[in-house]
Amino acid sequence: MAGTSSATTKAGLALSSASISPLAPAAFPEMPPVSGVRLATAAAGIRYAGRTDVLLALFDPGTTVAGVFTRSKCPSAPVDWCRAQLKGGLARALVVNSGNANAFTGKSGRAATKLTAAIAAKAADCKPGEVFLASTGVIGEPLEASKFVGVMDGLVVAAMPGSWRDAAGAIMTTDTFAKGAAAVVRLGPTIVTVCGIAKGAGMIAPDMATMLSFVFTDAPVAPAVLQNLIKQGVEDTFNAVTIDGDTSTSDTLLAFATGAAASQGVAKITRLSDPRLPALRKGFDAVLANLAEQVARDGEGARKLVEVVVEGATSKRSARRIALSIANSPLVKTAIAGEDANWGRVVMAVGKAGEPANRDRLAIWFNGIRVAHKGARDPAYDEAAVSAAMRKPEITLKVALGLGKGRDRVLTCDLTKEYVAINGDYRS
Amino acid sequence: MAGTSSATTKAGLALSSASISPLAPAAFPEMPPVSGVRLATAAAGIRYAGRTDVLLALFDPGTTVAGVFTRSKCPSAPVDWCRAQLKGGLARALVVNSGNANAFTGKSGRAATKLTAAIAAKAADCKPGEVFLASTGVIGEPLEASKFVGVMDGLVVAAMPGSWRDAAGAIMTTDTFAKGAAAVVRLGPTIVTVCGIAKGAGMIAPDMATMLSFVFTDAPVAPAVLQNLIKQGVEDTFNAVTIDGDTSTSDTLLAFATGAAASQGVAKITRLSDPRLPALRKGFDAVLANLAEQVARDGEGARKLVEVVVEGATSKRSARRIALSIANSPLVKTAIAGEDANWGRVVMAVGKAGEPANRDRLAIWFNGIRVAHKGARDPAYDEAAVSAAMRKPEITLKVALGLGKGRDRVLTCDLTKEYVAINGDYRS
Repeated sequence: MAGTSSATTKAGLALSSASISPLAPAAFPEMPPVSGVRLATAAAGIRYAGRTDVLLALFDPGTTVAGVFTRSKCPSAPVDWCRAQLKGGLARALVVNSGNANAFTGKSGRAATKLTAAIAAKAADCKPGEVFLASTGVIGEPLEASKFVGVMDGLVVAAMPGSWRDAAGAIMTTDTFAKGAAAVVRLGPTIVTVCGIAKGAGMIAPDMATMLSFVFTDAPVAPAVLQNLIKQGVEDTFNAVTIDGDTSTSDTLLAFATGAAASQGVAKITRLSDPRLPALRKGFDAVLANLAEQVARDGEGARKLVEVVVEGATSKRSARRIALSIANSPLVKTAIAGEDANWGRVVMAVGKAGEPANRDRLAIWFNGIRVAHKGARDPAYDEAAVSAAMRKPEITLKVALGLGKGRDRVLTCDLTKEYVAINGDYRS
Repeated sequence: MAGTSSATTKAGLALSSASISPLAPAAFPEMPPVSGVRLATAAAGIRYAGRTDVLLALFDPGTTVAGVFTRSKCPSAPVDWCRAQLKGGLARALVVNSGNANAFTGKSGRAATKLTAAIAAKAADCKPGEVFLASTGVIGEPLEASKFVGVMDGLVVAAMPGSWRDAAGAIMTTDTFAKGAAAVVRLGPTIVTVCGIAKGAGMIAPDMATMLSFVFTDAPVAPAVLQNLIKQGVEDTFNAVTIDGDTSTSDTLLAFATGAAASQGVAKITRLSDPRLPALRKGFDAVLANLAEQVARDGEGARKLVEVVVEGATSKRSARRIALSIANSPLVKTAIAGEDANWGRVVMAVGKAGEPANRDRLAIWFNGIRVAHKGARDPAYDEAAVSAAMRKPEITLKVALGLGKGRDRVLTCDLTKEYVAINGDYRS
């Protein structure tokens, strides 16, 4: 999902030449270091020139790991690698590169993951099976893992705590801003930290984690509990975001728990029944939700952030399906790009979802203004008020089905000519 | 699906202001009259100015009828009307209007269908239940059926055999050209004719017939057999075309068989085992396939006609699903718009289909040039040759899965900035 030319900003953060999304947060958030995690980035020249494209994260011994991956039947080589290494439950290093996804690269792709892990393991003085990998960028081009040889030793030396913004910048492709989020959680005698970074920005759809996201905590958490935290966490966060309905071969969410807080007297969380887990889960959920929203805010070509809320469905699952049908409809998305409260197309998208719906009970709101009611145009419909509401950069589209209590929401963005330009004008 | 301003050409054919699709056939085909069918068009001012927007077709007594409709859970009022009247199996008139879909119009929508049928029945001297209706255009706006009062009597007087081009023109919305197709079939002692018209051009996806299509024949065919002909016929024609994955509330395919050929000594076809049926089916299939291809050629903003062929799947059904996943992928469609043989995105679309696929057996061709083989880039891959092939207006994208004998194909078009402009710049 890349291919636009790029430039390095004064801050050393690599940015696509495309202008920053108008929906971007005002600034990269303040994020504290996570004890036991050190970060470094480098420009290995994988594909881009003049920007960083490799991230190395080093973890203290004993760090546990969990992962959620794409449901694609054609996953990338790094996804295969991570799935295999997760069985060990322990991690010492994470290597992420942008510019090449190492997907659909056959035997050479598997060899590239093996070589990358070997290079990193040697530099970090750990086992290859403790090295986790992710790659993002063009699909189908061989990844020259040998390029990592020249930079890995330097990365190990340079690794420092808390370089979150640089880390988030190195994993970007067509992203227009670096994405990070943090939460602090009281865990018994001390405060633990949950920090996450992510990258988008197209090929984002449910049935997966996200393109790439990495979450780090100093809380001591057993691998199975960590897995539960992120598996449940993605359901209403990353899995409730869609940009274009396309699912990447490379979607990866990895969570790393260094356990450094154990030195402050925090006992390890080994069971799902641990009474401290809900607080930690809240922290994880907040970070994942924040990152997922940033991914929607940086959808390729996005000019509007769109929240689709469906209520009155026969179940939450049914509400989710209808919300996704609306959020993935090119006709709904182009209408929102055109600032048109085209609820007829919303009806169309409800109708095609295949879920229970009664045309004559439907009601539809745009940013709180009801435009349709009982299966027809709202008699009180004020075109001027709706037009004003549609000019806002954030649109909430609510549909009430009037059938049951099922409710859900998904985030998406509008479909603009810029999306077509980003994905049609260049090989990516 | 309308909204662009329009103008009337010298030939009296209403055309959208958008330029004609570069994929359009050179000319409207020669189409013979169908004995027992008379056609007339008028400008009723439903929504458009300066163009025809109502089609009346009159049928001789004894004409049988069959229909296939949208699977939307929120169908339009005319779809509800037709489904109810089909039970009678007989038709004397068809009224089609463009500019307003009479969908999501509640009680007033039902009243509008009733009034339209009453007006037409009075003018045509038949029962309202013998009048079939279809509407296309904006969703959610009340249809002022009273506008038909002024034009219906004139239409009945003006109705003539064989005005196919005018008929096809009157039902257009964002279509850039009128769509017609004809076939002749030897049926015992004589030749019968199958003539069809259709309109697209967005909101086209499987799980339906098409936006609107009407097929007419002078063959004598019982309603149940006629139903079988079109139900089977749409499967590999209209149901194998997708423009944007969106499904209209109004998709309608109606077939009318006047039986006029009975006067030439053709006995009525009343059973599926009739030995003459395969020849007639061939004629129907040819007309439906031709119309479906024209719909793809007139996809909103289309610059390339794309045939997606999937073979080596575990079943035809699985091949269809994978072909649709590819054909509906915004990333594949924008890449083709950019003349980029981006087979990495094809792999992505195969992977997200959820159907059996083995990454390491995949092979992919663009216009006959193999770009990927055994799960990786084809070693013999010639970028220059592929680039030249991608500049052609017609692209065949073939994927071989290497798993079984399942094969299928679907038609689509590329996704261009023009699609976004058509659907985002104007209320439609």
